[in-house]
Amino acid sequence: MLVMGIVSPMATLPQLYKLFFSHTQHAAGLSLVTWVLYALITLLWAIYGIYHKNPTIWVGNALSFLMDAAMAGGIYVYAGFVI
Amino acid sequence: MLVMGIVSPMATLPQLYKLFFSHTQHAAGLSLVTWVLYALITLLWAIYGIYHKNPTIWVGNALSFLMDAAMAGGIYVYAGFVI
Repeated sequence: MLVMGIVSPMATLPQLYKLFFSHTQHAAGLSLVTWVLYALITLLWAIYGIYHKNPTIWVGNALSFLMDAAMAGGIYVYAGFVI
Repeated sequence: MLVMGIVSPMATLPQLYKLFFSHTQHAAGLSLVTWVLYALITLLWAIYGIYHKNPTIWVGNALSFLMDAAMAGGIYVYAGFVI
């Protein structure tokens, strides 16, 4: 299950690459609401996992939080305050 | 935690709306790899949750699977076989 937790943040890498490098002009098609909520949810799960000393929960979610927060930041920078 | 599991698929709705309705022309900026992997991961978690008769796990992940699969399908339809 720890492996499953790490696959998810890794899966976000191609989307990050497209936003920051190859398809920046399409940033407006990404949802700031979606990625901010993803970041908040993963942050809450990471805190929950750390509190319960359960690395299976917090490692993957902490990584996912970093990825999702980077997505949200990139959307804000390249597309502004969009939906 | 069941609520947390349902917030995540709901968070995907604005992104689905942008892909299918408001920003279809920006579909190329979305990563087919990312959304196919998200769909596979949530499908595996849903199956795991059903197998262990744990609705806290399977309800949210089954909904997330539907959302992520719809994203992947939309990207394929509007942008083709992209990264």
